[in-house]
Amino acid sequence: MHQVVANTDILEANERMAGRNREHFKERGVYVVNLMSAPGAGKTSVLEETIRRLKNDYSLGVIEGDLMTTIDADRISALGIPAYQITTGMVCHLDARMVHNALHSFKVDALDLLFIENVGNLVCPAEFYMGEDLRVMVYSVVEGADKPKKYPIMFHESEAVLLNKIDLMPYAGISMDELCRNVLEVSPETVIFPISCRTGEGVEEWINWLKQRIASSRAEERSG
Amino acid sequence: MHQVVANTDILEANERMAGRNREHFKERGVYVVNLMSAPGAGKTSVLEETIRRLKNDYSLGVIEGDLMTTIDADRISALGIPAYQITTGMVCHLDARMVHNALHSFKVDALDLLFIENVGNLVCPAEFYMGEDLRVMVYSVVEGADKPKKYPIMFHESEAVLLNKIDLMPYAGISMDELCRNVLEVSPETVIFPISCRTGEGVEEWINWLKQRIASSRAEERSG
Repeated sequence: MHQVVANTDILEANERMAGRNREHFKERGVYVVNLMSAPGAGKTSVLEETIRRLKNDYSLGVIEGDLMTTIDADRISALGIPAYQITTGMVCHLDARMVHNALHSFKVDALDLLFIENVGNLVCPAEFYMGEDLRVMVYSVVEGADKPKKYPIMFHESEAVLLNKIDLMPYAGISMDELCRNVLEVSPETVIFPISCRTGEGVEEWINWLKQRIASSRAEERSG
Repeated sequence: MHQVVANTDILEANERMAGRNREHFKERGVYVVNLMSAPGAGKTSVLEETIRRLKNDYSLGVIEGDLMTTIDADRISALGIPAYQITTGMVCHLDARMVHNALHSFKVDALDLLFIENVGNLVCPAEFYMGEDLRVMVYSVVEGADKPKKYPIMFHESEAVLLNKIDLMPYAGISMDELCRNVLEVSPETVIFPISCRTGEGVEEWINWLKQRIASSRAEERSG
């Protein structure tokens, strides 16, 4: 954020556009997950592991956010899942308008579940709602135990935090207890899943929780 | 960056203020290093290791940038080095005005060498010049070999890249060759130092290079 005064207008306009996206998703019965993290925490690896475990039961799609390349969208497409790449240029986060514009080309009508992988950044993505149902943060344990205190907003804004790369824990000199304590200090309601995309450890727990969230959302819609 | 049009004005105003900072530093003979990285790559650890090796030969100071906490400034102060914390709130990078304002309180007249530790972010800090002599990037090898392609501007803007956490290399499944190739592809002039702040490996090479850069700058000033 460059200027707080200008920013309020930008965020309000973003909220309005996000509301329109949300209507678009709801009308089509698409459950939308916004996946956020610092660069290199493993968002795309989490997506790959998640897609492998869900693709027989759900119709999936992915919108990828990146500054320049289509590396991540190519990885998703390689799994046979439709993927749309938004390249943001110099912009350090996705916003509701970018997603709105993507929806002109990327049809989500047939999807059960849409993942939006945000630009790797622990600051600005947390402020830009895009109309999603769920916000999930991926955090590499190697980044240290103090980061929840230093970047509290994203932790606070995320309903689940996947603590990734726990296979490196024994070598990284990081305390899982301290890390979890710091997450819960800034965000007591956040659900924590320690996982490793390399070994698969913990991934099933995350998948089961996500499935429950999707089922609850569908049940609510039917009763509403 | 939220809006490219507004951004041009912001960047131009920033350049002007950075020019004033630069004059301020030059008049006082202070060499200034801007240290940038993603969250958790190890900027503060690099600073600690660097300070330990330089503090007998140089008068040092540190300006710390962080969203909320004074954790990093406290770590630097614990080494007996004057440190000033800029807390940016929601702002994802330092800029020239923040540094200018800090200089009202934080006197650099007696310093040989000032480090400015930027907010952890691989995007926006690269665009905001603050009047520094040298830009150095810290990159955690655990973040993967593809990131130079995905965040090319910061790699391109950095004269040196410290590839940190190489002690985790054997466990992280990352190829050092591929990583270095990708760095040099987006920034052929960048000097690469593989280091580990935990084991000390490679740190002396970085220190010797930095000392040479400072000496060259002083020689230029005397001859100029």
